Amino acid sequence: MAKKQLRLGAFMRPVSIHTAAWRYPGGTPDANFNLRALIAYAQKLEEGLFDAFFMADHLAVLNMPMDALKRSATATSFDPLTLLPALAMHTRHLGLIATASTTFEPPYMIARRFASLDHISGGRAGWNIVTTSNPDAALNFGMTDHMDHAERYRRAREFYEVVTGLWDSWDDDAFIRDVESGVFFDPAKLHVLDHKGDFFQVRGPLNIARPVQGWPLIVQAGASDDGRQLAAETAEMVFSSGRTIQDAQALYADIKGRAAKAGRNPDHIKILPGALVVVGRTDAEAQEKRALLDSLVHYDSGIASLSIALGSDASGFDPDQPLPADIPDTNASKSGRERVLKLAAEENLTVRQLAGRFGGYAGHALVGTAEAIADEMQAWLDGEASDGFNVMFPYLPAGIDDFVDQVVPALQRRGIFRTRYEGQTLRENLGLPRPESRYRG
Amino acid sequence: MAKKQLRLGAFMRPVSIHTAAWRYPGGTPDANFNLRALIAYAQKLEEGLFDAFFMADHLAVLNMPMDALKRSATATSFDPLTLLPALAMHTRHLGLIATASTTFEPPYMIARRFASLDHISGGRAGWNIVTTSNPDAALNFGMTDHMDHAERYRRAREFYEVVTGLWDSWDDDAFIRDVESGVFFDPAKLHVLDHKGDFFQVRGPLNIARPVQGWPLIVQAGASDDGRQLAAETAEMVFSSGRTIQDAQALYADIKGRAAKAGRNPDHIKILPGALVVVGRTDAEAQEKRALLDSLVHYDSGIASLSIALGSDASGFDPDQPLPADIPDTNASKSGRERVLKLAAEENLTVRQLAGRFGGYAGHALVGTAEAIADEMQAWLDGEASDGFNVMFPYLPAGIDDFVDQVVPALQRRGIFRTRYEGQTLRENLGLPRPESRYRG
Repeated sequence: MAKKQLRLGAFMRPVSIHTAAWRYPGGTPDANFNLRALIAYAQKLEEGLFDAFFMADHLAVLNMPMDALKRSATATSFDPLTLLPALAMHTRHLGLIATASTTFEPPYMIARRFASLDHISGGRAGWNIVTTSNPDAALNFGMTDHMDHAERYRRAREFYEVVTGLWDSWDDDAFIRDVESGVFFDPAKLHVLDHKGDFFQVRGPLNIARPVQGWPLIVQAGASDDGRQLAAETAEMVFSSGRTIQDAQALYADIKGRAAKAGRNPDHIKILPGALVVVGRTDAEAQEKRALLDSLVHYDSGIASLSIALGSDASGFDPDQPLPADIPDTNASKSGRERVLKLAAEENLTVRQLAGRFGGYAGHALVGTAEAIADEMQAWLDGEASDGFNVMFPYLPAGIDDFVDQVVPALQRRGIFRTRYEGQTLRENLGLPRPESRYRG
Repeated sequence: MAKKQLRLGAFMRPVSIHTAAWRYPGGTPDANFNLRALIAYAQKLEEGLFDAFFMADHLAVLNMPMDALKRSATATSFDPLTLLPALAMHTRHLGLIATASTTFEPPYMIARRFASLDHISGGRAGWNIVTTSNPDAALNFGMTDHMDHAERYRRAREFYEVVTGLWDSWDDDAFIRDVESGVFFDPAKLHVLDHKGDFFQVRGPLNIARPVQGWPLIVQAGASDDGRQLAAETAEMVFSSGRTIQDAQALYADIKGRAAKAGRNPDHIKILPGALVVVGRTDAEAQEKRALLDSLVHYDSGIASLSIALGSDASGFDPDQPLPADIPDTNASKSGRERVLKLAAEENLTVRQLAGRFGGYAGHALVGTAEAIADEMQAWLDGEASDGFNVMFPYLPAGIDDFVDQVVPALQRRGIFRTRYEGQTLRENLGLPRPESRYRG
């Protein structure tokens, strides 16, 4: 029997997820203005047979103390829906997933632009649906009231219904284009959505043909109960954030179970936890690379992030000692404090190292040799903790090169990763069905 | 003294402006799904040294009787802001102007996407600001009330202030990217707009660097008094619609005069009337091409359009006779009726031919040999009726080929059109200044 296959997304911002990546030796400090660099990344990811280039996004310059912000390369970025069509012209197989919010833009434009990206890329578009809770973003859109969490998800669900409904405006075979008779489309194959809901009134039809994939791939990342339920009902790829295989297994079972309960085939929802991957020729080299990366986080920025995680001001601690034993336990940050203490104990980290970790990237990481990383990925795959990973690279371009040149071959040797793209579209490569129009059969 | 130079935009929908273009022999009936065709058009326009690919747009499938709509190839289209980044990857000099409305989208997203397109294209983006009066579009955005004309223009003006303000969020030299010290940008060169107006509240800053051009080119097409005033105050290219040189001269003088009164250099606003250009080896051949094109408009569609223009039902008229003499003069359509009668008399057209004209394209056209067309263009240029033209092609790709291969050389021989691109950016090619940031001295 064929082995279950691993799915790989590349979770990208123009300059890595790690705050200090732009300073890493051999890095690309200008990647957020540098289209050529981004094209090269996309092409290398395609060489590595990645399923998709998954573009993270914010709709604001994030609010942080200026002393930290001025050190962050992620304050600015290309816009995903304009960048990905450009990358589509330099790739042939790589999926192109853009983050777009259901809180600030009208569904008609989202439907049209993702359909357009899908046509432009020959069926490689994906939409990462986010509900955007960020209050800084809200201020850029004239919103001062924070929208209630449940309300945001109800709105997102209706937004999804409108967008997918608009994508079905034209049947796949609506366009006859009969030059002789002069009939361009068959009126029976045009559908007017006429949506009237709690949040939106949208008549339709959409003024673009049905996407190549029927619908672009639906992606979500919500971790809350509302988020999981929305994902289970609608998503085809889930970006999750489990830090341990046990946590990931629980989330995996939960979402697949909810999907089955909602009447969906659980295989049609691919769960891909995020993972920062740092590859070394030896385990020690990989650990050193990561330590170097974390050490490039400015101490003031790092200590500010650590203080937030702890719920206590860490600026008075001795940088080169372990955490003091008497950090107060405030209710507000119980889970954050526990997480810091656990990590400090597990990896025996000083305050300075913890500051680097929390100021850089403190989520799930795979650090080691290519073989060890491939083993871990296989363990998660076989252990029903994930269907693959959304890989984050610690620095660019070398982080991508290391993964593609070393980890991908190791995965292929295990028989759990493709040696060529299976299909033409993102859905085909992921083994997902093409949605039927709601107006069919 | 160097001659005044002609500016050329290509006013494009994926399938020509003319309703029957998709049926023309050798045409491209699937151009609105056919990225390869659009890339080839853009490349040919660049070969012809056009200033810009100017993409028209609607935000709805236009409301017309289904018997006419089903014959229209313009019911669907790629979205401009996703198409143009793709075309940017296949061109090096051609300006890329996208139409985007101030009525339906938030200014933060418009600012970000045009800035992103400008970075992606190396400084070739332009924004055609439209206020969108179309009631069909409004229904796709949950609006049932028609916004008052003056109100739409006040909103557009404020929208422009917000967008240009956001583009100035970062000084051109804000990004230091000092790997050694770890400082990515200079906080003194970051500006928070904090706009609070009648229509919008937008804090900023924009999360993308200042555009390559400072601001993307500002384009407008409003013909009303409000539209002209907005153009005079803000636009750098005006798409106008004069049908005769006298009308065009009056409009030209009006807008340039208003610009001067607003304290602007009138040379910094380029006025480019639209013109359908049909080229033949002889005048007779050009007229035959146009007649063939008009004849491909279905009679029912054409007669419906003619009836609207006349303000009287034309469906009972004898198709192969001139217009009857006794068409009633209704108040509602006085100017439309006069326009039809004038055209019928000037060109001695039958009802069928008039139906083809009004069902296809009834605006300003230049029909003749390349030399005659170049003469006419020069007469408009020298007569201060225009600074160039937004050329519309009657069918594709041959309409572009005819223009580039025949009219462009004729213009060059007259010394009124470039023989190579002058600069790197759209502004440089148009001879327009790069705007200073509002935060500079």
